[in-house]
Amino acid sequence: MKFCPNCAAPLVKRVPPGDSVPRDVCDACGSVHYQNPKLVVGAVPEWEQRILLCRRAIEPRYGYWTLPAGFLENGETPAQGAARETLEEAGARIEITAAFSMIAVPYVNQVHLFYRARLLDLDFRPGEESLEVALFEESRIPWKDIAFRTVGLTLTRWFADRTQGSFGFHAEDIK
Amino acid sequence: MKFCPNCAAPLVKRVPPGDSVPRDVCDACGSVHYQNPKLVVGAVPEWEQRILLCRRAIEPRYGYWTLPAGFLENGETPAQGAARETLEEAGARIEITAAFSMIAVPYVNQVHLFYRARLLDLDFRPGEESLEVALFEESRIPWKDIAFRTVGLTLTRWFADRTQGSFGFHAEDIK
Repeated sequence: MKFCPNCAAPLVKRVPPGDSVPRDVCDACGSVHYQNPKLVVGAVPEWEQRILLCRRAIEPRYGYWTLPAGFLENGETPAQGAARETLEEAGARIEITAAFSMIAVPYVNQVHLFYRARLLDLDFRPGEESLEVALFEESRIPWKDIAFRTVGLTLTRWFADRTQGSFGFHAEDIK
Repeated sequence: MKFCPNCAAPLVKRVPPGDSVPRDVCDACGSVHYQNPKLVVGAVPEWEQRILLCRRAIEPRYGYWTLPAGFLENGETPAQGAARETLEEAGARIEITAAFSMIAVPYVNQVHLFYRARLLDLDFRPGEESLEVALFEESRIPWKDIAFRTVGLTLTRWFADRTQGSFGFHAEDIK
């Protein structure tokens, strides 16, 4: 059972008037509690043809490598969120260049958004959520130990675009 | 005061361990309740150089014109959400062409995402949330009566790209 955050009465699942989807409805105070997908924002930080990756110190995917990324917070823009996550997880300062990939993951109610970025200096170190942080050239990327499919896909698109000589924007879905 | 959706105990605002932002924390059951920005998804439906707009039958911005758009639902991709909203608000079937604009509106905790789309036929009609639905050529767009800044910005970028002869992807912020 779930309870109303506004008045603590029990919630019921019901399609509200004018809606087409069952929601958490409170019959006591009349409020409707919507649940919507979350935006995960991250960066592809580059330094002289190498990409910054973090090895995760937390679940899920403890010990696997990822691009710095996390949930967008209220009050910030996606680019600000990507820069904040890069600072938190890798202790690294970046300059965002452009939006690069947007990958929907509807089965976990998430949309992942990655930005191209330039690493501003080599003064990085693992944050609390990372075991280690390192720069990888393309041939050294630990493809079998990448934490998430959206990260692997983003890295694949990034190196393909670089080889081709121009970077695009990639919108895709993982189903 | 807010209450825990899991156990109905009062929530307190506090920075959880390992976090840096105050959250709604439940001391009774230990749960943390995050609040994150929502994704609004919409379409720019085109038919022979004209764009489909809806005049809003609901607040906010009752009576103003908008592109079909609404909150992304759990379980759907952004493109699916944009097509669903176009069907709900305009009774119109579209084929999504490409992601076109992504506009952050951090002061209302939203990110608006619009897709280029092709209207499949002229069999459209206002849904419950629209007073009327109509096709507009560029010179007839009701610029002074557009409901939202993200819609006006998306239309401006769309016509500029068309004039220039190639459509890009536009990521911007409204602050």
